[in-house]
Amino acid sequence: MDKIWKNNIRDIEPYVPGEQSKEKGIVKINANENPYPPSPKAIEAIRNFEHQKLRFYPDANAAEFKKAVADFYGVKPQNVFLGNGSDDVIALSFQSFFNGELPIAFPDITYSFYPVWCRLFKIPYKNFPLKSDFHINADDYREKNGGVVIPNPNAPTSLGEGREFIEKILRCNRDCVVIIDEAYVDFGCYSSIDLTKKYENLLVTGTFSKSRSLAGMRIGYAIGSSELISTLEAVKNSYNSYTVNSISMAAGTAAIKDREYFEKTISKVIATRERVKTRLREMGFTVLDSQANFLFATFCSKNMKDYFEWLKTQKVYIRYFNLPRIDNYVRITIGTDEEMDIFLQKTEEFLRL
Amino acid sequence: MDKIWKNNIRDIEPYVPGEQSKEKGIVKINANENPYPPSPKAIEAIRNFEHQKLRFYPDANAAEFKKAVADFYGVKPQNVFLGNGSDDVIALSFQSFFNGELPIAFPDITYSFYPVWCRLFKIPYKNFPLKSDFHINADDYREKNGGVVIPNPNAPTSLGEGREFIEKILRCNRDCVVIIDEAYVDFGCYSSIDLTKKYENLLVTGTFSKSRSLAGMRIGYAIGSSELISTLEAVKNSYNSYTVNSISMAAGTAAIKDREYFEKTISKVIATRERVKTRLREMGFTVLDSQANFLFATFCSKNMKDYFEWLKTQKVYIRYFNLPRIDNYVRITIGTDEEMDIFLQKTEEFLRL
Repeated sequence: MDKIWKNNIRDIEPYVPGEQSKEKGIVKINANENPYPPSPKAIEAIRNFEHQKLRFYPDANAAEFKKAVADFYGVKPQNVFLGNGSDDVIALSFQSFFNGELPIAFPDITYSFYPVWCRLFKIPYKNFPLKSDFHINADDYREKNGGVVIPNPNAPTSLGEGREFIEKILRCNRDCVVIIDEAYVDFGCYSSIDLTKKYENLLVTGTFSKSRSLAGMRIGYAIGSSELISTLEAVKNSYNSYTVNSISMAAGTAAIKDREYFEKTISKVIATRERVKTRLREMGFTVLDSQANFLFATFCSKNMKDYFEWLKTQKVYIRYFNLPRIDNYVRITIGTDEEMDIFLQKTEEFLRL
Repeated sequence: MDKIWKNNIRDIEPYVPGEQSKEKGIVKINANENPYPPSPKAIEAIRNFEHQKLRFYPDANAAEFKKAVADFYGVKPQNVFLGNGSDDVIALSFQSFFNGELPIAFPDITYSFYPVWCRLFKIPYKNFPLKSDFHINADDYREKNGGVVIPNPNAPTSLGEGREFIEKILRCNRDCVVIIDEAYVDFGCYSSIDLTKKYENLLVTGTFSKSRSLAGMRIGYAIGSSELISTLEAVKNSYNSYTVNSISMAAGTAAIKDREYFEKTISKVIATRERVKTRLREMGFTVLDSQANFLFATFCSKNMKDYFEWLKTQKVYIRYFNLPRIDNYVRITIGTDEEMDIFLQKTEEFLRL
């Protein structure tokens, strides 16, 4: 730091987001993206948008989009918050609800952004280790917390928890805000959205990036009591009133109204997931029972980092985390059947090496 | 506050964003939006986007878009930061660069978000009153500051400052980051972008919402030394790696490459502005010499709040601020010639009332 003006600059460790390869012919099953395109109705909404109107600011209250989301989830528009991807929604929630002295609690193996946001917003936090079967231990969260964040299903473990588990957490944490991050919930996991009517300190967050194939449009949401939502709105409006752009709103509204396409796509991903899981187990892999659009797997006698790197040379991109406890696991996003067949074939080749 | 979980919730005054009326037949000259649509090339880029690809996350580094912005402004891609509207860019800059004990400085009459961000991020600040002619007094900024924010041209005054003024500020503030907010610069004001090569503590911010008619797409940028930009990138990547969506990037890239349309639109807005300014002065208004896409005006013997409200009954929406020193002024966005003719005709009617 040679110059004085550098003294007041944020001292921050650069977080490098995952590479988006532009190479052709890649089986890209490394970013938990949906292998199927967005609903044709969402694409139609983008194409038919009155582009002349882009000179206007978006509706800061996103009234129409909120209503569509509320209708889908059986809540009221005042229970819905919308943001620029669920990262934006969860980051704003951290800023909005975790302003106490007590540390907030989340699992040791989980979405890597939670500790990053804590450092960014100077929120104290503590981690509770997952059990040896990689499930979250609800009893860990019984002590007094400044807040609780539970991803359900968890990532990268893919494991989901049921209503009883969630209510156990909620019953012990009535004095802080509990966030259930449901980014992957649509692939067969229990959703806590109904519980927001019972627990007014419960915030459930979600995204259009996974089950609705709109990662490129950046749409996230939160559902909770009108008190939590109005606080989020106030903080959002103090930061950037127009977070969701006009075309994302149009695409998102059309996407959430197309329940049929949504259910069809999800069924396909789940069917492929179950088939790949079974096949990997037959080959000798240990594969966790996924309720997400990815599998978390290991093979005791093989080095998973080597496996990950070898697959890359074969143009199959999966994900490997060099982190304690999971450094011999890989995360495999569910692609199309054709993509997964290539993946399985390459995996067989690897095992024969 | 009846429940304990409410104790750690952010205590925040709700900021209510301006209403976007859906009524038809309105002359909407209240939000500083551009009266002309975006470049046809931007619209083409949106229509021709490979919508199937929206299932992928956007390029977190926005390489192609950054290069187009860098080319336009004669800087390098590592000198360009992109965000979800310039509000997002400036808010991130406040978080990134204003972490000292000394208050940051900006004018008393200026963009209303600056004090809101200071409160949100707990940044101490001080205001310096504009001179009686509503120009900024550069000498005010000579004392030691934690940071300086100067909008050029200023809003809602519409007044711009030249290179000498900006360098005077920069020469006195070598020990903090200086932000020049150029949201309206393209309508005839001096741009400090070239000075970023001389002063590595200078950050210039801008938006695609005004001169490029893309308010609905949420695109903002900052230009500065690679050191400032890499800090912004690190903070952004700790918050939400994928801030700019894929379609905004495509539209923005096409828009900034279409220099001809950009220049043509700006000339039209400036010509209309000068005509309306002259006409208002002929009627007896005091109108400041605008370098923006709006006029700031008063009429000594008339109540401007009444004028604003009466115009609303006539379906002409302008902007009135009930704030000290400017509570008998109105801000009039420059619309099309047809819109401004209606506005002028209604104004004549008002003066005859």
